[in-house]
Amino acid sequence: MNKSIKEVRYKIRISYDGLNYSGWQFQPDKTTIQGEIEKALYKLGGNKIVKIEGSGRTDAGVHARYQVAHFDLKKPIHITSYKASLNSILNNDIRIHSLKKIKSNFHSRYDIKSKEYKYFIYNSKIIPAYLRNYSYHEHRKLNIEKMSEAAKLLVGKHDFSVFSVNPGYNVEDTTREIFKIDIKKRNSNIIISVIGNGFLYKMVRSIVGFLIDVGLGNFEPSSVKKIFIKEKRDKDVKTAPARGLFLWKVNY
Amino acid sequence: MNKSIKEVRYKIRISYDGLNYSGWQFQPDKTTIQGEIEKALYKLGGNKIVKIEGSGRTDAGVHARYQVAHFDLKKPIHITSYKASLNSILNNDIRIHSLKKIKSNFHSRYDIKSKEYKYFIYNSKIIPAYLRNYSYHEHRKLNIEKMSEAAKLLVGKHDFSVFSVNPGYNVEDTTREIFKIDIKKRNSNIIISVIGNGFLYKMVRSIVGFLIDVGLGNFEPSSVKKIFIKEKRDKDVKTAPARGLFLWKVNY
Repeated sequence: MNKSIKEVRYKIRISYDGLNYSGWQFQPDKTTIQGEIEKALYKLGGNKIVKIEGSGRTDAGVHARYQVAHFDLKKPIHITSYKASLNSILNNDIRIHSLKKIKSNFHSRYDIKSKEYKYFIYNSKIIPAYLRNYSYHEHRKLNIEKMSEAAKLLVGKHDFSVFSVNPGYNVEDTTREIFKIDIKKRNSNIIISVIGNGFLYKMVRSIVGFLIDVGLGNFEPSSVKKIFIKEKRDKDVKTAPARGLFLWKVNY
Repeated sequence: MNKSIKEVRYKIRISYDGLNYSGWQFQPDKTTIQGEIEKALYKLGGNKIVKIEGSGRTDAGVHARYQVAHFDLKKPIHITSYKASLNSILNNDIRIHSLKKIKSNFHSRYDIKSKEYKYFIYNSKIIPAYLRNYSYHEHRKLNIEKMSEAAKLLVGKHDFSVFSVNPGYNVEDTTREIFKIDIKKRNSNIIISVIGNGFLYKMVRSIVGFLIDVGLGNFEPSSVKKIFIKEKRDKDVKTAPARGLFLWKVNY
């Protein structure tokens, strides 16, 4: 081996339409976002296996406006044309928005300062046909004021086990900090933005599922306190469907 | 025939995702929006053929937030359950938002006061993956001020032949009045709203194609005047792609 050939680390920003994928994470028998990008890198790099590390997983059907991943290459590349080639190999429901060299100790997951998710709800009798895969349809009227009240009580550092599915899976500490939850209404569209330092498995969808129940009057906002005391998830907390969820931003 | 059985006219409001359809208008060998709705009405009405009349055609790939059509039925129906049944028969990329009885001389096309279309452009290097079917991607920077200037000159009563494809097709008079063109920018999204009393074949897409060329600096806004003088369409006016176009509202 030539000692002068050192690996260089690259950071990519990715958007995707989650509709036709079994989520972010590579699975040998399924079509996943990570799998497709690794396949594209494999083709581009002369059939050398390249593993990429994402900022976190997204479930089947979840979309991303701004996902980040890193990977290492030995062979020098021309950044602009490499990015263009990746995009031409990938299906157009996965896009590489930027590709940059980054310091070799950068880590797309460990270095995260905060992450933002947005959840889109269409709150009217019938959902416009073209929104069906990008918004959750709730035909019963939601009380935004109550949802915002409950959201305030979720902000802060808490053990979010009850707002997760299999909370102990792959993590020891189930404490997370939510910095901000913002709920906006534009005509029939409700947009819930959740910013935090990290998220447990299905945590955003569980929070949204709970907020929807608050909006429907099934829970009082103050019930947040009661729910946090519980150690295990129960049927009180539902998981909102994947299609309304977008990974919106990853901050380092 | 029982003379007491009179036909009743109904007005429906429809949204659709145009992606998988060969446009609005029925074609015997193709899947169209009109065709699908007529098929659903046929099934619901005990295999009686029902023809529907839309407010106008939309091309293959064009979407609708608010399309209107009317049809007549002899058999009395229960409005709410009929609407629900139609939606359950139709694919979820076509939705019936409302179904109402309407006076028998109402006509979804002849009675139009104005129509609004919106055209969505994503103006940045790479388009987010999930917008690919609902927005036209222009990676070169568009000058909104110049586009708005040109748009102002298009407002009013004009012979829009040059902003149409086969302008004489099915119409004698090619004069139309545009009431308003509004161009907004939100981050990288440019939204062009066009309101008029009627539109020639591919007129909105031709106007948008021209405005994009103005935004790119290929035309000066003042060239609108020169273009109107021409009697036939030429290569100066391009047709913007269908996927960015939404029929937004029909006013009676």
